Amino acid sequence: LDEISMKKAKERLDNLTKPRGSLGILEDLAVKMAGIKRELYPKIKNKVITIMAGDHGVVEEGVSAFPQEVTPQMILNFLSGGAGINVLARHAGAKIVCVDVGTAADVFHPDLIIKKVRRGTDNISRGPAMTREEAIKAIEVGIETAWNEIDKGADILGTGDMGIGNTTPSSAILAVYSDEPLEKLVGRGTGINDERLKLKIKAINRALEINQPDPNDPIGVLSKVGGLEIGAIAGCILGAASRRIPVVIDGFISTAGAIIAAKIEPLCTNYMIASHSSEEPGHKTMLKLLGLEPMLSMRMRLGEGTGAALAFNLVEAALKIISEMATFDEAGVSGQLE
Amino acid sequence: LDEISMKKAKERLDNLTKPRGSLGILEDLAVKMAGIKRELYPKIKNKVITIMAGDHGVVEEGVSAFPQEVTPQMILNFLSGGAGINVLARHAGAKIVCVDVGTAADVFHPDLIIKKVRRGTDNISRGPAMTREEAIKAIEVGIETAWNEIDKGADILGTGDMGIGNTTPSSAILAVYSDEPLEKLVGRGTGINDERLKLKIKAINRALEINQPDPNDPIGVLSKVGGLEIGAIAGCILGAASRRIPVVIDGFISTAGAIIAAKIEPLCTNYMIASHSSEEPGHKTMLKLLGLEPMLSMRMRLGEGTGAALAFNLVEAALKIISEMATFDEAGVSGQLE
Repeated sequence: LDEISMKKAKERLDNLTKPRGSLGILEDLAVKMAGIKRELYPKIKNKVITIMAGDHGVVEEGVSAFPQEVTPQMILNFLSGGAGINVLARHAGAKIVCVDVGTAADVFHPDLIIKKVRRGTDNISRGPAMTREEAIKAIEVGIETAWNEIDKGADILGTGDMGIGNTTPSSAILAVYSDEPLEKLVGRGTGINDERLKLKIKAINRALEINQPDPNDPIGVLSKVGGLEIGAIAGCILGAASRRIPVVIDGFISTAGAIIAAKIEPLCTNYMIASHSSEEPGHKTMLKLLGLEPMLSMRMRLGEGTGAALAFNLVEAALKIISEMATFDEAGVSGQLE
Repeated sequence: LDEISMKKAKERLDNLTKPRGSLGILEDLAVKMAGIKRELYPKIKNKVITIMAGDHGVVEEGVSAFPQEVTPQMILNFLSGGAGINVLARHAGAKIVCVDVGTAADVFHPDLIIKKVRRGTDNISRGPAMTREEAIKAIEVGIETAWNEIDKGADILGTGDMGIGNTTPSSAILAVYSDEPLEKLVGRGTGINDERLKLKIKAINRALEINQPDPNDPIGVLSKVGGLEIGAIAGCILGAASRRIPVVIDGFISTAGAIIAAKIEPLCTNYMIASHSSEEPGHKTMLKLLGLEPMLSMRMRLGEGTGAALAFNLVEAALKIISEMATFDEAGVSGQLE
């Protein structure tokens, strides 16, 4: 991050007609954006949500409330404009890009980017999700996607995901990096009942026991207990950071990807902007691990990038605050007494 | 609220291509808006932030970090477009209306609505803020303002405030309705130091002792330890509710006004939408008293209606979700297993 632009941004914010720091995270965002974009008044013109899709072998343990066929069905829904993310991306003026990194079924659509690394992962409660090579490939798909969009003019990205069962590997990744008991880290995903929740915790416990993921080897963690779309999300973040482009992180699955990215290259957290606090109980712990603070608390748990899409509006608000507000001198307003 | 429209809204939301309830507060908002507007797909066209301004005799106790002259200076800043609320209202596509309910100085501007009930309140730590008649007049100013804007086509209002020292009467109002110790309810407002914070707590303690406000007499509470702009905010909410128009509640001062409004007519909480959770420590307690849940946690403490302005975008997002998302049938997506 560019320290000089950040210092200038801070100084300007302190001279605007408001008590110092009183716009909270909006001010922090303006400073961060100045640091990322290396200018005081950056503009955002092209917002893109990248939705990474993949399937999960662990669904055979009964961990999800929806059948696996919903993954390709929802991809087609994204591409015909009827999903939650379509509505919220349109509302935010953002484009969506959908990438098949590893669905189990064959999905075709002229707008779908097909980069299938493999047909879904293996069941993590019985062995590794994928090979190390496949994990690296999934990350590379994400990097390529980010670079492609940046080449086409994207100046901010938002992460999104689709994959029935993907809160299970996300919880497993979190468990590798958190000391809290599994019961506190595992939630109901799309809305499973008590019985399925027990199966889910059991499956994650077994996944950790059988695979023995090493926290110091994030690519190993991804390949053993992760998912293809989670790897691609990590790659998308790494790709954006490498090109100094900010990335708005969506909810639980996206933040699992962000943890993998941060463990591979800690500096990439500088480019992350947290959006919302998910209804998944472990999400707060994830954000804490990354040192990120969410702006929205909407009790959302849909994924797809819906939280990221809502947060774009707040990033834009922050950029307008620093560029459009009057200073104390300009407005003839008296300053603080102490 | 119209129960039939709310039931229809809930049914439609449950059929959209997402796990039931997974868009959290966005779904609750869509249901609430259907109940308020008595239709399934209401539209918001005209958003208005009403900024109520007044001064506070209690500032002579040294409770604020800014001098009283800042109240009229900021009013002129609002009217020339340079304040935080101007930037965020423009960003939201909302109009602002500024009403002088009781500033101490004379302020003139062609766009300022002058409805001065009196020149600032008296020092609440030495006696009542105003007479009962003045408190009623302040509320009436708010009702008139709301009705005026609704007559001109406003279909959603947001509350805003300006008044140096106004976290002090707001904390006093909260203290009347909360059992928590004063230290937990009183914050640093615009950013006072430890010394001023002690003076502020002392002033509020004395205000409560001398005035003995009766919780069962909200107009009495307003006249004894409140403020003119707080009364006008309460009136604005009552006026909006009486015309079935939703009101987005801003931060600490606005929520103090909302408490007075709710104590006068409990049904008006049906028309309230909470925006953000303020940095003022007592704000969470206020929202709990009203049964409201904030959507944004931005560490903001500026007032002026800035939080309400940011929340308009979320209300609009909720209305688009219910009207634009595809159902499971339309999109050919399989439903939940259980």
